[in-house]
Amino acid sequence: MKVILLLLLFIASTEQSPTHHEDEIGIGNHDIAIVNVMGDFEVNDNGCPDKHDHHYNLTRSCLELKEKYHFTKDGVHLFITSNGELYQAFCDMTTDGGGWTLIASVHENNILGKCTTGDRWSSQQGGNASSPAGDRSWSNFATFGCTEGATSDDLKNPGYYDIKASDISIWHVPNDTPLSSWKDAAILRYHTKTNFLQQYGGNLYQLFHQYPVEYNKGKCPDDNGPLSHITYDFGSDEKIQQLYGPLSHNEFEPGYVQFRVFNNEKAALAMCSGVKYNGCNSEHVCIGGGGYFPEASPRQCGDFTAFDWNGVGTHQSWSASKEVTEAAVLIFYR
Amino acid sequence: MKVILLLLLFIASTEQSPTHHEDEIGIGNHDIAIVNVMGDFEVNDNGCPDKHDHHYNLTRSCLELKEKYHFTKDGVHLFITSNGELYQAFCDMTTDGGGWTLIASVHENNILGKCTTGDRWSSQQGGNASSPAGDRSWSNFATFGCTEGATSDDLKNPGYYDIKASDISIWHVPNDTPLSSWKDAAILRYHTKTNFLQQYGGNLYQLFHQYPVEYNKGKCPDDNGPLSHITYDFGSDEKIQQLYGPLSHNEFEPGYVQFRVFNNEKAALAMCSGVKYNGCNSEHVCIGGGGYFPEASPRQCGDFTAFDWNGVGTHQSWSASKEVTEAAVLIFYR
Amino acid sequence: MKVILLLLLFIASTEQSPTHHEDEIGIGNHDIAIVNVMGDFEVNDNGCPDKHDHHYNLTRSCLELKEKYHFTKDGVHLFITSNGELYQAFCDMTTDGGGWTLIASVHENNILGKCTTGDRWSSQQGGNASSPAGDRSWSNFATFGCTEGATSDDLKNPGYYDIKASDISIWHVPNDTPLSSWKDAAILRYHTKTNFLQQYGGNLYQLFHQYPVEYNKGKCPDDNGPLSHITYDFGSDEKIQQLYGPLSHNEFEPGYVQFRVFNNEKAALAMCSGVKYNGCNSEHVCIGGGGYFPEASPRQCGDFTAFDWNGVGTHQSWSASKEVTEAAVLIFYR
Repeated sequence: MKVILLLLLFIASTEQSPTHHEDEIGIGNHDIAIVNVMGDFEVNDNGCPDKHDHHYNLTRSCLELKEKYHFTKDGVHLFITSNGELYQAFCDMTTDGGGWTLIASVHENNILGKCTTGDRWSSQQGGNASSPAGDRSWSNFATFGCTEGATSDDLKNPGYYDIKASDISIWHVPNDTPLSSWKDAAILRYHTKTNFLQQYGGNLYQLFHQYPVEYNKGKCPDDNGPLSHITYDFGSDEKIQQLYGPLSHNEFEPGYVQFRVFNNEKAALAMCSGVKYNGCNSEHVCIGGGGYFPEASPRQCGDFTAFDWNGVGTHQSWSASKEVTEAAVLIFYR
Repeated sequence: MKVILLLLLFIASTEQSPTHHEDEIGIGNHDIAIVNVMGDFEVNDNGCPDKHDHHYNLTRSCLELKEKYHFTKDGVHLFITSNGELYQAFCDMTTDGGGWTLIASVHENNILGKCTTGDRWSSQQGGNASSPAGDRSWSNFATFGCTEGATSDDLKNPGYYDIKASDISIWHVPNDTPLSSWKDAAILRYHTKTNFLQQYGGNLYQLFHQYPVEYNKGKCPDDNGPLSHITYDFGSDEKIQQLYGPLSHNEFEPGYVQFRVFNNEKAALAMCSGVKYNGCNSEHVCIGGGGYFPEASPRQCGDFTAFDWNGVGTHQSWSASKEVTEAAVLIFYR
Repeated sequence: MKVILLLLLFIASTEQSPTHHEDEIGIGNHDIAIVNVMGDFEVNDNGCPDKHDHHYNLTRSCLELKEKYHFTKDGVHLFITSNGELYQAFCDMTTDGGGWTLIASVHENNILGKCTTGDRWSSQQGGNASSPAGDRSWSNFATFGCTEGATSDDLKNPGYYDIKASDISIWHVPNDTPLSSWKDAAILRYHTKTNFLQQYGGNLYQLFHQYPVEYNKGKCPDDNGPLSHITYDFGSDEKIQQLYGPLSHNEFEPGYVQFRVFNNEKAALAMCSGVKYNGCNSEHVCIGGGGYFPEASPRQCGDFTAFDWNGVGTHQSWSASKEVTEAAVLIFYR
């Protein structure tokens, strides 16, 4: 016989602060502060919980959640790093078998703000040769943003450096799209299936330690970093071509994702999402970067670098389309 | 027979990171990392947990916590959005029957910083016609700040866009007041009881999609947005009059809250807390806004716009009092 | 007979949002959103949980965790403030008996950025006499950063103002060191054992209310604030001497930690970590501060003030060494 039992749990504080004036403002005893966590478990024939049926640990990734506990629906879950830090992340459990953890989004809050507040994937310090690596978010442990806000603000959660992954998936989602519509609203979705991350330490944190995103650490194209083929889940080579300015078209080849490339002036860019960059004007197509872009400085400095070189969203000359300029780049690991 | 049982719970990580040198620094097995969550439940006559007594789910608002689980004391609780994101929020469970969730605070960190870092409810980009909507916090999914820090920093939690509400409550609380003293220290507290939010989508996120906070999207007073009468919990029409500069007095009527108004130069302001604004110099009384205020730009740009027009806290001409300039505006839903 | 039982718990949402299109994108029923929390407890001879064995409450500090529940390993744990706010913090459970809670880190993100974004322990507003107290992080309730990111970004968690402590411990850890290597990688570790914090309200939040970190609130050396002797866990007086510029050596005495000192121009600095400052050029050794440093303003304004006065990391004249300039200062309470 199996029956369902329900538990009442609570989180209790153990001390009252001297500044905690219960009587005055009615803040109560924290012994009942959080009672609204429901426990549910099956019991065995003896009427008590069955030891062998339900052993669920917090996991370190959506892939682990899928493989160990057979989760199959997209949604937000709680994870724990190897050091014990808890965080929430969105799981794509359906694309190509699922198991994808959203670990970052690159969101351009103000394409005309050149390495200003909000440019966490390049620099918030204005663009300066004395800060060649900029904010260093690609290779440090700083985290920021919230899962549900991934299309409205930059996001980087502990999964970025904690998860050991083989592949990445990328969604280009129009700014300010609600989480429940991300997949449908995306203008492009694609993923790698080459296990390429395994060669570079298992995640982007490790990869960018091998390929620093820093001005003047190499030159184009000789020192450009690793790349992988991609498989489209939504979109195509043609769609990617359409998103960028006509003068860029001869400089890249769609169907790839490439990391840490330099431009003509030795500025470092972090990621060319959707393309392999053969030319040296990558600042109109690739995103993220170091803290200094010499050409017409700081006009190319920012999370979406110089997408606006010939006007914001004009899709003329080197300028990218409005569509891609106003879409956040969501990055998943598996 | 009913007895109380206590549970020992723990959150366990399932893998050791290669960079996790347990022996070297003594960071232990995460199987015992978090044991300090206490469970407490009653059992039925059979000595095992009673299925019918205690079924508590995480809720989406303080109102739900009050209605379903009969919470009656003010305090901080854990909530979950419709997408599964967890967050904490403060509940006012006593004002007019309670059920109020704190979802935002507008805090002026530096009245002389004109759309600089910390002006999350207007713009952190300096004030520029090319960024007419500014940081867009009123109408996007970005969140920031912490509940206990609501009087020391801007706050916006997921409740802002997730909760379906009918009314709002506003507390003006002196900067840096500790949470336990908010209610007592507030210089003004009032709430609507008109269910007006139901007409605008159930929360401010939805309302501001209908009434964008954006420069040059309308003119004063024809295009000013919705308003509601308020009921005072602490304060009065007279108190509100006293808080603003003498030249403002003929321009507003106390006893209301109004949303998205324009000024003479077509700058957009988000909220006139406590007043209906009839004139067109609303930048000395209303708060939050878009990213561009043309008059003497950027002197009127910021979370508390041009409260300091004739000196900070002077209470002369158009300048607001020191009291209201140095008080955070806490916004609750019910 | 004692046996181990395992529980399956879950956090359930109670309502589906209208914007939550389950069928379209496959985000499932949140009744099973978080099942991966494992409960483990012993049962008594009757086969049900034993009331007397396991009563664990969330605690307010690592010291409480050590004293009440006998934790002995370093690691990240969950805590609760007196108001019920949950947060995570790192515990040093081994130094001098353990019980140390990491509550803050002061990280210089850009020594050449003078009170720019990221200077949360001084000012992010550029340095201005009209903002004499700057961002006020030393004496308000704003919190920021993440535990694992403490060497990559500024950190301040609710423990800063919530914990009642007697002593502090300080680690100088090279920027971007992973948590698991903090202790080994630290260039200096020391702690007080004088219970000095008890005289100043039990934490730095209280201490800095008595000794405001604000320009022009006093003069050097008459109005400098409290200090305590320190005991070295790693390092020595000699090591501290080596970290700062040769011209500074005659101005300080190693073996102390001192709070709120002024410099020649009446700028306020928050903390001299490792030294007692006798001279009045403390801006080359002490860290954190108010919002205005008059000398060559804003060249001395920032989290690590004027460590770069004679070049970044040159270790010449007044300039500090590269080693200390590029190390985050981690602050623990006990």
